[in-house]
Amino acid sequence: MKKTDLVCTHCEKIFLITEVYPRCDICNEPLEVKKAAKGRIKEGNTFTQTILERYEDFFPFKGIEEDICLHEGFTPLINSSSLAAELGVKEIHLKNETGNPTWSFKDRGTSAGIQHALKLGYKKIGTVSSGNMAASIAAYGAKAGLKTFILVSADLPPEKLNPIAIYNPALIRVQGDYGNLYYESLKIGQKQGIYFINSDVPFRVEGSKTIAFEICEQLGFAVPDYVVVPTSSGGNLRGIIKGFEEFRLCGLIDKIPRIICAQARGCAAIYNAHSNNHETISRVENPDTIAHAIENPLPPSGNEILRKLRANDWISVAVTDEEIIRAQKRLAGEGIFGQPAAAVPLAAVRQLAGNGVIKSRDTIVLIVTGGGLKYTAAFERHDLKVADCRIEELSEFMR
Amino acid sequence: MKKTDLVCTHCEKIFLITEVYPRCDICNEPLEVKKAAKGRIKEGNTFTQTILERYEDFFPFKGIEEDICLHEGFTPLINSSSLAAELGVKEIHLKNETGNPTWSFKDRGTSAGIQHALKLGYKKIGTVSSGNMAASIAAYGAKAGLKTFILVSADLPPEKLNPIAIYNPALIRVQGDYGNLYYESLKIGQKQGIYFINSDVPFRVEGSKTIAFEICEQLGFAVPDYVVVPTSSGGNLRGIIKGFEEFRLCGLIDKIPRIICAQARGCAAIYNAHSNNHETISRVENPDTIAHAIENPLPPSGNEILRKLRANDWISVAVTDEEIIRAQKRLAGEGIFGQPAAAVPLAAVRQLAGNGVIKSRDTIVLIVTGGGLKYTAAFERHDLKVADCRIEELSEFMR
Repeated sequence: MKKTDLVCTHCEKIFLITEVYPRCDICNEPLEVKKAAKGRIKEGNTFTQTILERYEDFFPFKGIEEDICLHEGFTPLINSSSLAAELGVKEIHLKNETGNPTWSFKDRGTSAGIQHALKLGYKKIGTVSSGNMAASIAAYGAKAGLKTFILVSADLPPEKLNPIAIYNPALIRVQGDYGNLYYESLKIGQKQGIYFINSDVPFRVEGSKTIAFEICEQLGFAVPDYVVVPTSSGGNLRGIIKGFEEFRLCGLIDKIPRIICAQARGCAAIYNAHSNNHETISRVENPDTIAHAIENPLPPSGNEILRKLRANDWISVAVTDEEIIRAQKRLAGEGIFGQPAAAVPLAAVRQLAGNGVIKSRDTIVLIVTGGGLKYTAAFERHDLKVADCRIEELSEFMR
Repeated sequence: MKKTDLVCTHCEKIFLITEVYPRCDICNEPLEVKKAAKGRIKEGNTFTQTILERYEDFFPFKGIEEDICLHEGFTPLINSSSLAAELGVKEIHLKNETGNPTWSFKDRGTSAGIQHALKLGYKKIGTVSSGNMAASIAAYGAKAGLKTFILVSADLPPEKLNPIAIYNPALIRVQGDYGNLYYESLKIGQKQGIYFINSDVPFRVEGSKTIAFEICEQLGFAVPDYVVVPTSSGGNLRGIIKGFEEFRLCGLIDKIPRIICAQARGCAAIYNAHSNNHETISRVENPDTIAHAIENPLPPSGNEILRKLRANDWISVAVTDEEIIRAQKRLAGEGIFGQPAAAVPLAAVRQLAGNGVIKSRDTIVLIVTGGGLKYTAAFERHDLKVADCRIEELSEFMR
């Protein structure tokens, strides 16, 4: 590892980067890798490079273990002039994360997390998740040949278990308080030498920051006005913010875009605290949204996101399931079929454009976080059209 | 369009590239764009380039309509040393097409097909498919704002309709002989000005050739010994062969890899004809395989593939559903979850390594054609493992 530190996001206590800590032992807030303040992009073709190679200066690794990666990242940024016209803004760009190796943004943080685990000599990894992150860790654990623990809730249905189990991890349904499992797993991991790459651990956040790096490059270092991120644990949003901050510190961009934290109304711990001016987030009782991928009732990075939103006068929004479903269909109209959570940014922008917060001069990037085939139950919420015709009448029918 | 021709793959009759023809009117065999014999790769970063831009010299287009593409292609080539060791060969590389915008290789041909359609002034496109190609055409048609017809068989179940319908095409269940629909659609298209980008039309083949281009680049222009392709209509395989041929004609590589046409035993029209030394393929009655994506009983490019296999002394293989299922699980062990058809090349190589055709000195590229979430019924064929545990006993359980 290069010489740098982990820092508590709240009290700024310093920790060793060569260790794995559950959280800050003073304030129980998440840690992060100290921001890179010097660095440049390693030129090369992203076709054969990896994200960890291209942005090596911004990671604390000395050398990259290449053969454990699946070439995550370097996802397209798709310009949609029709969405921009429809919403009355200057430009809309869709950062399409559904083309990642396990079809969500999670692969970036998984790759960075495993890299750290290997540098520290770990032979076992794990995560607590029942969706995108579980599939991602299971896939990368298999590729890297590591013993891989995936902890899920006891009531997870087979259709959610199968896409994880196919990678053959040690998959465990855990009976008990699922909310507590995040913290419990980190403790067990520390005792047993299992590196838990949970939702907002420092190196998962490191992986997510490459989303910001790529947006900067793809827009030719012209910083967009807004970046809109579906927000659950807060780890991905923290990473994206950190990426823009590091590129600014390194002189690659001259300002940070305004951030929009987009949540589902049925599970909006951060939005609730932000809009009610609370100091900290509170657990959402009985969360209920179709956007299961962002249905975290007590986001472990929620307080840190809240601090960031306040300090920068940024925005949080909550959208209804109806708005999400409508946005999912509209995104498909751009050729991009995202899971419900991935449509939350479009729903959020529609709301903010409608009430005048977002203006006609604005350029906006929406993070499309994961693929639509991950949650096919959403089809039932759509009014999908199909016609019937006999082959003899087809020519006439198609006229 | 640049000045070049379409050529019949069999009788070599010349056709206009500015027209759309169903097939050769003499021999009813498929047409192809005359091979590019001069060209170089346009340097640039694949992060922001498109495949049509990078390989523009090898396409007959003058200028590329960029805003209709979803950044298909430029997929990873993943080296698997563990698979190579297991199969006793020198190198195995997995060309992972599951990260394409609609999660299959089809997006390449769709993009090239729409490009041709727009150059000729078409406002309507279509296809006959119930799987990967249907989703791809529906997505790209939506992005390009074209009226898009998707013709499927009358008995297609909702779980296969939904991932097409979400993109909102004119989706039509056609009652009647589905085998005849391929030819019928091309005729209707010609009359009504609808460009049918079916499985092996010339510009779909053009799109597929970029798979070969990319493999050459990703291996540093060291030609692999074998390239193994799941084969259905034969269009994708024709494209891959054409790509290698063009790069050789242009002096970018000095030979062509040996091609392995991999089919499912339950629907192996090409393999059957090849191994029985028949002049032409015959329709497979009652096709039956779990690899539905390659379940074409009468491949429209089957005879042309047969001619290529013979002329070059290449190989065809058929694998059982059991071999496919085993290969699907093994691929997931490399972190890549492909649909059953995508596992057919690995099953084929295992067979050929087992009987000594493939040797320990060989470098092999497997084309992983589409993502595993496209066909979740395959989960039932796997013995997937999950354990149960109470949270209080978790620490002990994980030891």
